[in-house]
Amino acid sequence: MLQFIEKGTVTSTPGFKAAGIFCGIKKKKKDLALIYSEEPCTAAGTFTLNKVKAAPLLISRYIINEGKKIRAVLVNSGNANACTGDQGYNDALESQKLAAEKLNLKPDEILISSTGVIGKKLPMEKLKFGINKIVNHLSECGGIDAAEAILTTDTRIKSFAIKIKLGSGGITIGGICKGSGMIAPNMATMLGFITTDAIIETSLLQKLLSEAVGESFNKISVDGECSTNDMVIAMANGRSNIAILENTIDCQLFKDGLNTLCLEMAKSIVADGEGATKLVKISVKNAKSKLDADLVGKSIANSSLVKTAIYGQDANWGRILSAAGQSGADIIPEKVSIHFDKLPVLLPNYNLALDEESALKILMRPEFEINVDLGIGTEETTWWTCDLTEQYVKINSDYRT
Amino acid sequence: MLQFIEKGTVTSTPGFKAAGIFCGIKKKKKDLALIYSEEPCTAAGTFTLNKVKAAPLLISRYIINEGKKIRAVLVNSGNANACTGDQGYNDALESQKLAAEKLNLKPDEILISSTGVIGKKLPMEKLKFGINKIVNHLSECGGIDAAEAILTTDTRIKSFAIKIKLGSGGITIGGICKGSGMIAPNMATMLGFITTDAIIETSLLQKLLSEAVGESFNKISVDGECSTNDMVIAMANGRSNIAILENTIDCQLFKDGLNTLCLEMAKSIVADGEGATKLVKISVKNAKSKLDADLVGKSIANSSLVKTAIYGQDANWGRILSAAGQSGADIIPEKVSIHFDKLPVLLPNYNLALDEESALKILMRPEFEINVDLGIGTEETTWWTCDLTEQYVKINSDYRT
Repeated sequence: MLQFIEKGTVTSTPGFKAAGIFCGIKKKKKDLALIYSEEPCTAAGTFTLNKVKAAPLLISRYIINEGKKIRAVLVNSGNANACTGDQGYNDALESQKLAAEKLNLKPDEILISSTGVIGKKLPMEKLKFGINKIVNHLSECGGIDAAEAILTTDTRIKSFAIKIKLGSGGITIGGICKGSGMIAPNMATMLGFITTDAIIETSLLQKLLSEAVGESFNKISVDGECSTNDMVIAMANGRSNIAILENTIDCQLFKDGLNTLCLEMAKSIVADGEGATKLVKISVKNAKSKLDADLVGKSIANSSLVKTAIYGQDANWGRILSAAGQSGADIIPEKVSIHFDKLPVLLPNYNLALDEESALKILMRPEFEINVDLGIGTEETTWWTCDLTEQYVKINSDYRT
Repeated sequence: MLQFIEKGTVTSTPGFKAAGIFCGIKKKKKDLALIYSEEPCTAAGTFTLNKVKAAPLLISRYIINEGKKIRAVLVNSGNANACTGDQGYNDALESQKLAAEKLNLKPDEILISSTGVIGKKLPMEKLKFGINKIVNHLSECGGIDAAEAILTTDTRIKSFAIKIKLGSGGITIGGICKGSGMIAPNMATMLGFITTDAIIETSLLQKLLSEAVGESFNKISVDGECSTNDMVIAMANGRSNIAILENTIDCQLFKDGLNTLCLEMAKSIVADGEGATKLVKISVKNAKSKLDADLVGKSIANSSLVKTAIYGQDANWGRILSAAGQSGADIIPEKVSIHFDKLPVLLPNYNLALDEESALKILMRPEFEINVDLGIGTEETTWWTCDLTEQYVKINSDYRT
C-alpha cells in the first residue's frame, strides 16, 4: 500500500532534519540547503555521465563508492563549482570540512553538491557565513526550505513523500529535487535527494536506486542536455527498525515506493521544464528490442520539431514518425501507428485516422500521451517530455548575465 | 584556380536549362522547379538516413543506384509526399511519367524530389497543371527561378556557381539548395542540386560527391533533425569535353571545386537557419580520433544551451565544455582550451582567460568561430551551427496551420 503524504518532503521521514537559507551566492533567493540525519545512514547515489564533472560531485561519488555511512548533505545553488580546477576542488573540501566541524561530524560523513553557473569560483566567504548559520536552522519541518534552496531556474519547489505499509509496519520515503533546463537522459542539471527510515544495506539500496533512476530521471527530456553536476542521492537511517531484504515482499513494496517517488519527482522536473507549458508522456510499444523502444522514445522526447509542434497544439504526426525514423532503431514505417491518448491519428500502412478537431481537444490539455506502436515486437518504454517555447530561449539566452 | 561566378546557379553550367513556377501547391509562392540537361548526364546522389523515406526519394535513389543516365530533375515544394503510402508512390511515378512525356524522355531519365509538409497527399491536379506549364518556361537563365521554387521556410535563395581553370580549359559547377529547419547531419530537410559540364564517370562522381557532402551538408546543424526527403544530386553533362579522371591534377582541382561549392551551399543553409541570426564555425582540434573530433563538433553544434547562449551573446564557455563532455568522445577536461576566433577564453587546467568585453565584441558579430582544442591528439574537424532564437520556436509551432 502506497500513499503520498500531503506536503511531503525529506523531513517527512522520521530522524531527518533540514534547512534552507540565503547566504548571498544568489542575489536574493535561498541558496544553501542542508539535510541532516540524527543517525548514520547507508547511502547510494547515481551520477552524471558527462566527462566534465564538478568538484563536489567527484567528492560525493568517492564517498558513496567507498560505501561509507553518511550523516548529511550540503547543497548550494547559484554556483556549480564546475570547471574550477584545483581551486574548486579545495573549495569543495573546505566547505565540507567546515560543515563537519559545525555538525561535529567527520568530513567524509557529509556529501556535498552544487548547482548553478559553470566555471565561476565559489564565493567562499559567503558560503562560510552560510554554513555557520544554516546549522542553527536545522529542523524537522525544514524539508520545504531545503527544497527551495536547491532551485535554480525552477519556478516551483519539487518535494514529495510516500508512506509504505509493510507487513511489519510502515516506512517513509521522502524526496526533493531540482532541475528545469539541461534535462536529458543520464542525469541532467538535476539534483535529487531521497531519505528513508528503512534499514537497508548499501548494495541493495544502490541497486534499487539505480533501477528507479533508470526508469524515471533517465527517461525525461527538456532539452537533451546532460550536465556536469547531476546526482541523485538516497540515504537510509534505519529509524523504522524495519529491514528491507532482497527477494522479499517488503523489498518489492519498498521498490514500488521508491520507483513511484522517483517517477513523480522526475515528472515534476519536466512539467517545470524551462518555459514548458505541457507535460507529455511518450509511450513506445511493440518494439523489436528494449534498446529500440528506448531509442525511439528518446528521439521523440528530444526532437525540437516535435516539441515545438506540441507547443503549437499541432497534430503533426509526421514529425513524430520522422523522429522515430531518425532514432537509429529498427522500424518499418508502414507498421507504425500513433495515438494521442486513445485517439487514433495514424494507423498502419499510412492510414490517416486524424480527426483534427478531436486531436486539438487533446493537444490543448496541459498533460497528454503520445502512443507510438511500432508493431514489430513486444518491447516497450515510457519517456516524458515537455514543449519547446519562446520562453525556453529567453531563459537560456540571458541566464548568466 | 577556383572562382565564384557572380549570381551563379545551376544554369551557369553550359548545356543546362531550368525553370521555377507557381502551380498552386503553396498559397502564393513558386512551388515547382525543373532542371533540364540538353544531353544525357552521369549522375550521383546522397540520400537521407532516416528510416522513413519519402516516395520520390525512393524512386530517385533507385535510378541513381542503377547508374542510369539522366536528363532532368523535377522538384516540388510545399508538400513532401512523405508518409503517403502506395498512393504517394503512385503519385510520384505519375508526375515523373507526365514530365517525361512533356520532355520527350523516358521516365527513368528524370529524377523527382519533394519537400514540405509530411503526410499529406500531393495535389495531383495542380501538379499536373504545373508540369504541363513548366516545360515551356525552361531557359538558360532559369536557375534562379528554380532556386526560388524549391524553398520552404527559407528566407532567401541559395544559389552558387564556381569556375575551375584546368590545364585543358575551364569547367563550371553550379548548385542550388534549400533547407532551413530540420537541418542536421546526414541530410536534413535539405535538397541540393548540382550541375557540371565535366565528363566524369558515375562511380567517380559518386565518390567525390559523397566526400564533399560528408564535409559540408553533413556537418551543419540547425536543430538536430534529419528528415525524410533529403538528397543532394549531382549531374555531369560532359559539354566541356574535359574528362576528369581519377588520380590526376584535374581531378584534384575538380574535387576542390566541388568541396568549395558544397561547403558554400551548406553554410548558406545554416546562415538562413530558421530564426537564426548568427553563423558559427565550430573548429575542433587535437582530438584523439577523427570520430572523437566529430562527436565533439556535433554535440556543440546541436546543443540547445550553446545555441541559446550564442543568441544571447553570452560567453558561456561552460556550456561549450559541458557539451563536449557529454558527446561520448574521449576528453580530458583539464586539457581543453577554448578560443572565440583568436581570443583565448579557457586555457588548459581551467585557466580562465576570458576578457568579457573582448568576447562580447566577437559574439556580437553575425559570423564567428568557436575553437575547441582537446589537447590529446592530432585529429580535427569543422562544424557549422546557428543560434536558437524565439523565432525558431514561432516558425515551428505554427508551420502546418
